[in-house]
Amino acid sequence: MRIGVLTAGGDCPGLNAVIRSVVHRAVADRGDQVIGFEDGFKGLLDGRYRELDLESVSGILARGGTILGSSRLERARLAEACENSEELIARLALDALVPIGGEGTLTAARMLADAGLPVVGVPKTIDNDISATDRTFGFDTAVGVATEAMDRLKTTAESHQRVMVVEVMGRHAGWIALEAGMAAGAHAICVPERPFEVDELAKMVEERFARGKKFALICVAEGAHPAEGSMPYEKGVIDQYGHERFAGIGNRLAIELEHRVGKEAKPVILGHVQRGGTPTAYDRVLATRFGWHAVEAAHRGEFGRMTALRGTDIVMVPLADGVSELKRVPQHRMDETEAVF
Amino acid sequence: MRIGVLTAGGDCPGLNAVIRSVVHRAVADRGDQVIGFEDGFKGLLDGRYRELDLESVSGILARGGTILGSSRLERARLAEACENSEELIARLALDALVPIGGEGTLTAARMLADAGLPVVGVPKTIDNDISATDRTFGFDTAVGVATEAMDRLKTTAESHQRVMVVEVMGRHAGWIALEAGMAAGAHAICVPERPFEVDELAKMVEERFARGKKFALICVAEGAHPAEGSMPYEKGVIDQYGHERFAGIGNRLAIELEHRVGKEAKPVILGHVQRGGTPTAYDRVLATRFGWHAVEAAHRGEFGRMTALRGTDIVMVPLADGVSELKRVPQHRMDETEAVF
Amino acid sequence: MRIGVLTAGGDCPGLNAVIRSVVHRAVADRGDQVIGFEDGFKGLLDGRYRELDLESVSGILARGGTILGSSRLERARLAEACENSEELIARLALDALVPIGGEGTLTAARMLADAGLPVVGVPKTIDNDISATDRTFGFDTAVGVATEAMDRLKTTAESHQRVMVVEVMGRHAGWIALEAGMAAGAHAICVPERPFEVDELAKMVEERFARGKKFALICVAEGAHPAEGSMPYEKGVIDQYGHERFAGIGNRLAIELEHRVGKEAKPVILGHVQRGGTPTAYDRVLATRFGWHAVEAAHRGEFGRMTALRGTDIVMVPLADGVSELKRVPQHRMDETEAVF
Amino acid sequence: MRIGVLTAGGDCPGLNAVIRSVVHRAVADRGDQVIGFEDGFKGLLDGRYRELDLESVSGILARGGTILGSSRLERARLAEACENSEELIARLALDALVPIGGEGTLTAARMLADAGLPVVGVPKTIDNDISATDRTFGFDTAVGVATEAMDRLKTTAESHQRVMVVEVMGRHAGWIALEAGMAAGAHAICVPERPFEVDELAKMVEERFARGKKFALICVAEGAHPAEGSMPYEKGVIDQYGHERFAGIGNRLAIELEHRVGKEAKPVILGHVQRGGTPTAYDRVLATRFGWHAVEAAHRGEFGRMTALRGTDIVMVPLADGVSELKRVPQHRMDETEAVF
Repeated sequence: MRIGVLTAGGDCPGLNAVIRSVVHRAVADRGDQVIGFEDGFKGLLDGRYRELDLESVSGILARGGTILGSSRLERARLAEACENSEELIARLALDALVPIGGEGTLTAARMLADAGLPVVGVPKTIDNDISATDRTFGFDTAVGVATEAMDRLKTTAESHQRVMVVEVMGRHAGWIALEAGMAAGAHAICVPERPFEVDELAKMVEERFARGKKFALICVAEGAHPAEGSMPYEKGVIDQYGHERFAGIGNRLAIELEHRVGKEAKPVILGHVQRGGTPTAYDRVLATRFGWHAVEAAHRGEFGRMTALRGTDIVMVPLADGVSELKRVPQHRMDETEAVF
Repeated sequence: MRIGVLTAGGDCPGLNAVIRSVVHRAVADRGDQVIGFEDGFKGLLDGRYRELDLESVSGILARGGTILGSSRLERARLAEACENSEELIARLALDALVPIGGEGTLTAARMLADAGLPVVGVPKTIDNDISATDRTFGFDTAVGVATEAMDRLKTTAESHQRVMVVEVMGRHAGWIALEAGMAAGAHAICVPERPFEVDELAKMVEERFARGKKFALICVAEGAHPAEGSMPYEKGVIDQYGHERFAGIGNRLAIELEHRVGKEAKPVILGHVQRGGTPTAYDRVLATRFGWHAVEAAHRGEFGRMTALRGTDIVMVPLADGVSELKRVPQHRMDETEAVF
Repeated sequence: MRIGVLTAGGDCPGLNAVIRSVVHRAVADRGDQVIGFEDGFKGLLDGRYRELDLESVSGILARGGTILGSSRLERARLAEACENSEELIARLALDALVPIGGEGTLTAARMLADAGLPVVGVPKTIDNDISATDRTFGFDTAVGVATEAMDRLKTTAESHQRVMVVEVMGRHAGWIALEAGMAAGAHAICVPERPFEVDELAKMVEERFARGKKFALICVAEGAHPAEGSMPYEKGVIDQYGHERFAGIGNRLAIELEHRVGKEAKPVILGHVQRGGTPTAYDRVLATRFGWHAVEAAHRGEFGRMTALRGTDIVMVPLADGVSELKRVPQHRMDETEAVF
Repeated sequence: MRIGVLTAGGDCPGLNAVIRSVVHRAVADRGDQVIGFEDGFKGLLDGRYRELDLESVSGILARGGTILGSSRLERARLAEACENSEELIARLALDALVPIGGEGTLTAARMLADAGLPVVGVPKTIDNDISATDRTFGFDTAVGVATEAMDRLKTTAESHQRVMVVEVMGRHAGWIALEAGMAAGAHAICVPERPFEVDELAKMVEERFARGKKFALICVAEGAHPAEGSMPYEKGVIDQYGHERFAGIGNRLAIELEHRVGKEAKPVILGHVQRGGTPTAYDRVLATRFGWHAVEAAHRGEFGRMTALRGTDIVMVPLADGVSELKRVPQHRMDETEAVF
């Protein structure tokens, strides 16, 4: 077989592990040819690719980023490609295409599959919000980075009677905030799934200090938002060039809490540190299994599907299932900790 | 309620996280009283315990070991306790008992439950070999430690044309070897579930060097063993005091490979480094959830059961299921990597 | 002897290691009594202290923060204490006082020493800017945390053609920025010792992208500042409560670079993550040696002095030397890397 | 200038950082040409080399191992090369040669320098035993790895009343054992510089358990040895192929202690894990500075010398000084901790 692989969308620890696994399984075990498209779908449409042999993926298992590069594709170009899919299929001469990406990528993958391309998707998001799979690779690494940062912040916050507001990734779903917050023992966790009352957070902080506790640690997802009317100023501030800046919930919440509680409240915005670097062992294993199963699915001719973790097994599910609905933190998971506000 | 908690068996990162979670859920949320028995079942039978309030579990979430201590119990004492269970129940005045432990502990827990004690078990093993649960806490930490060690060994093995034989934990099941080996990109993985041929390992190593590769990394579970007749000398060596020493498979395999391949082969026995220290975020979350659900089960009166991870949910399963059968690495998991010999 | 110990000023990994070392050397080896004052000089003046025996320092070697707490002291109270030093000396009945702290603490220590107290100082600052010692504990940990964060940022910046502006600690001296920047291979390092031209930074970034490089990493000390006239808007922005916010150089520089270069520039403010958590082995060893030598100096009656690292040895230097002058990054250290702008 | 660089001897984290630094300083700043010889002196004598440009050292700063490979050279070939040095000089057309290596390499470098080659040495050893320099890169990483392993072992040893005997690197000098032992709070440290009495170690362990302590941690350098007559059986054991095996002091000491104290004593041999993987920030900075100064020395024509750290500065010292005498742990450093036996 001739298998194409590409990575698209935001960065995610484990991308290289998937690429390596596809090449190992396909080239070494199956005798296939693998080509890697550069910069995501752009490389596919522009015909920019290189052959990936075993040597070209040597040493990348534990490396962050993606050796193939990534980009975001304009919808127009994608639609055009779907319309001319026969020409594209003929030109690429691919027996299978393995796009590795998040919700946007999988939607594009589904369109290409519907247009006739032999697509086997691999889901990717550090946010863990793809409904068809129990977990996605990258998520464990992001949770680990956030937890380690909060472990460090706890000792120092305690010495100085501070409130620490740590903003972690998670625009639409609060998985990173929930799991890192639980792992670090945060006193409050704010997730997009449940609007929070600033007054309740302030009250919790005040009660802690009243009980003689020396600090409070709040873990807030970037997509968390206050209940309507709970925070007077919803906007960020305008910089000297007229752009809105620092509108992030971490910064805003720290300002509000400091104002209300009268204790120093420091925002820490972890940002892209969560997206980069060496993946955890968990993420490397999951990414490697996804890559292996994608090749097997291609050989079985199971197209229009994507890899997914269900319990301890990797299964193939329709691409449609992966993108139909965002996997949000359900009520029963929030109930498992009193820290979710 | 009055809830007793104890930890028994070998060490495992996450034990303190379970204890803390039981106390947080029971004392802070439910208004229960929690007592902790010292040194496992011994403390239960001897009546050695202390009350655990919120302060006593402050700061232990990320700490290795167990604040309650542990021990292994003689079966005779346990049997005796079961016979006099009514007296024990009356004396302890417990509404629930939460033993946290591995196969031996859960078997003991089941006996006590059968004798009438209100037991809610929490499974624990770094080996991940309890069949009733998808994963156990401690396992992720052990895999992480082993992977990090192998990451380091790879760069140095390459510089010196060496074979590295890394022995990891796993007496009856090869989960740590499988996942750490996959995560580190080991060239061979030996698990207890499949006897290996030393000649095949030697051949793989020779072929690597013949292809110009500069090292080979072999990850072997402590419980892995050669196929019958595959390794001439099965025994270790006798030390000056007459005890058999260094009979471990890692040491023996390194000797055999060095003899056959003619390249330096170094054994690295990771040992107890895998059992200690700060648990990963994954293990802290799983341990915390187990503790929370154990308290809930106690309040619902669901005794004779234990917590288990199924997919993304924590469920309660009969204690009998937890100990009926060891969870071994199944064939389809070994098939996912060519490295398993 | 009866030795008092206290920690003052900002948090710094290694404080607990000094306390433990003082207790080990004094109590276990020398047969002394050690008391620990709570919350820095405040505890000293208020007479709040507890006896520190071996058990009380068990397990704190690797723990961040300080078991004694810390605070900043008003100058007025200190002056008053110095005036009534005889009464203070009589009341405390101390044979030696070991204050562990930064520039402010050492200045206070010097005043108390001049007033007759038997002071042996131990210098502490993550900024490494005390002139009398080659290095201070805490610095290595801060550099390590900043380096690890930048290691992670590099892989992800590369995937998305971004400029990353990482702000690290260092208000008056650029040591953390210099060493973490060198360790992480930052493309530009900005230190307080040399005002930078924003245009030059922008030019460097543009040239990198023109050469096909996919990202730029800039490491800036919090105390770094642009050359006069180099950055049009020097101020931060005013928040909804009338306070100036986000005036940090990291935020402002990212705004300027994004405006000039036209590439996304993301600020990452590491903040207090650098101050907390487990100290590195280097910092634990240095802190332990400082504590040991402080006790020895007390027994030799060498008061009015502080511990200092010179080459590989710990020596005692006059407290005056420790605070006379800030240790800035000298020209020849900046010359060692082209990255300093 | 045309500068040759090579790495020789055992592996050491930071080698790649030196290579990268030489190339950055020489090629980017000075306009030099740099060539890298493969596999140490062998590549030099065989004329196997490749040009190193900026691209070829991209991304290696934080990578363990050496991109140039390494080997140990037979003395005979080296002597021959020195005799024919004029031919060698003419053939290589080098303006400077930068060998990076330990005692053996620096001795060879000195011979080549005496024979007329324009040599600028860079010292390298994880053992930190080169007398001319305060510290060598690689040492800090090794100490960090050993400390982290002992941190983990402490929690688990405590749970099971065990004696842990951790063997670290250091054949002729005990620096790693001393600093890692201090950093981890080991209860005994054994170094090659001072023969230890097994009975005294056994007594210390017994006293700890008698005082109610639950474990003992012993950190022993691989080159440490018992005082004459202190340990009855000095030999290891003979394996099935007639080689002496497991003669390491860690294994032997654990056997002796278990026999004498009657508590389980587990040896942990960290081995090559200490030599590989990502260097610490400290080692990256030191290695980078060494590389920079080596290029500068070459441009100043300072040959026959090597880089060295003195206090906070990098200086050039005669190669003879680097190899004249091993830097052992001096008495006053052992006095700083009661743990050295």
